[in-house]
Amino acid sequence: MQDIIIRRAVREDCPRLLELVRELAEYEKAPNEVTVTLDHFMESGFGEKPVWWAFVATVPSPGQPDDRLIAGFALYYVRYSTWKGQTMYLEDILVTEHMRGKGIGQQLFDRLREEAREKGFRRITWQVLDWNEPAINFYRRQGALMDPEWLNATIDI
Amino acid sequence: MQDIIIRRAVREDCPRLLELVRELAEYEKAPNEVTVTLDHFMESGFGEKPVWWAFVATVPSPGQPDDRLIAGFALYYVRYSTWKGQTMYLEDILVTEHMRGKGIGQQLFDRLREEAREKGFRRITWQVLDWNEPAINFYRRQGALMDPEWLNATIDI
Repeated sequence: MQDIIIRRAVREDCPRLLELVRELAEYEKAPNEVTVTLDHFMESGFGEKPVWWAFVATVPSPGQPDDRLIAGFALYYVRYSTWKGQTMYLEDILVTEHMRGKGIGQQLFDRLREEAREKGFRRITWQVLDWNEPAINFYRRQGALMDPEWLNATIDI
Repeated sequence: MQDIIIRRAVREDCPRLLELVRELAEYEKAPNEVTVTLDHFMESGFGEKPVWWAFVATVPSPGQPDDRLIAGFALYYVRYSTWKGQTMYLEDILVTEHMRGKGIGQQLFDRLREEAREKGFRRITWQVLDWNEPAINFYRRQGALMDPEWLNATIDI
């Protein structure tokens, strides 16, 4: 697959992005956890005060090579750390199932790294499920350190 | 200890807050991880575009009861989740060592919950080290769910 284009997400991508967020939640065995609405999602990314940014990977549509389909995405926000200052928090990265193994994830990750450098973030952090071996192997290849010592804590209000 | 006052942190609290951040990092066995400068810390909390908010717990100074000392703090930022929308991320909560066991942590946590309700966050999330039993017990009493399934991943740029 040579013809992969990585570009910044735009407002019109939101419905497809939310589909991919749901695909990822299903893969992570938490399909019912996605309760955010499309309106809220769009507003948070492209309203007056954006709180997330994303890149999409597009490939030619099989039947209509002039049309391009979104095959994957990476979405991040800026996280404040009292240890490191502003860091890039990679909220989601996903390549849709039938498009895996073509290097799309690698291109998305390279783009994230470039963005982090440009914006002056000193660190990229994210989380991965301990049973998600394909992802863990991919992140190892990127040089990531993975630390099992922290537990996630949650209270719903 | 009856005389605990919880109030919003102000700019002048920053040097003391950073001391407490360092005390927490030491407790968490990562004293060298705190590389943020006081200027950057202050600017991030009280500059044009604040990215964190905090509450402090003050108690009377032993020798000078009219003076008040900061005995603990809780610092949060707003985190975007593609599942839940805006949530409160509790970056740090700490009561300085010799002031523990007096209910200060509970008052700080109650204040956070109130803040989350007022700001319309549906969820508070944070992380705790798996060997930090006193903290884990405290969070259990708050009704928190703790999930060991996620690994923290990091790349330094």
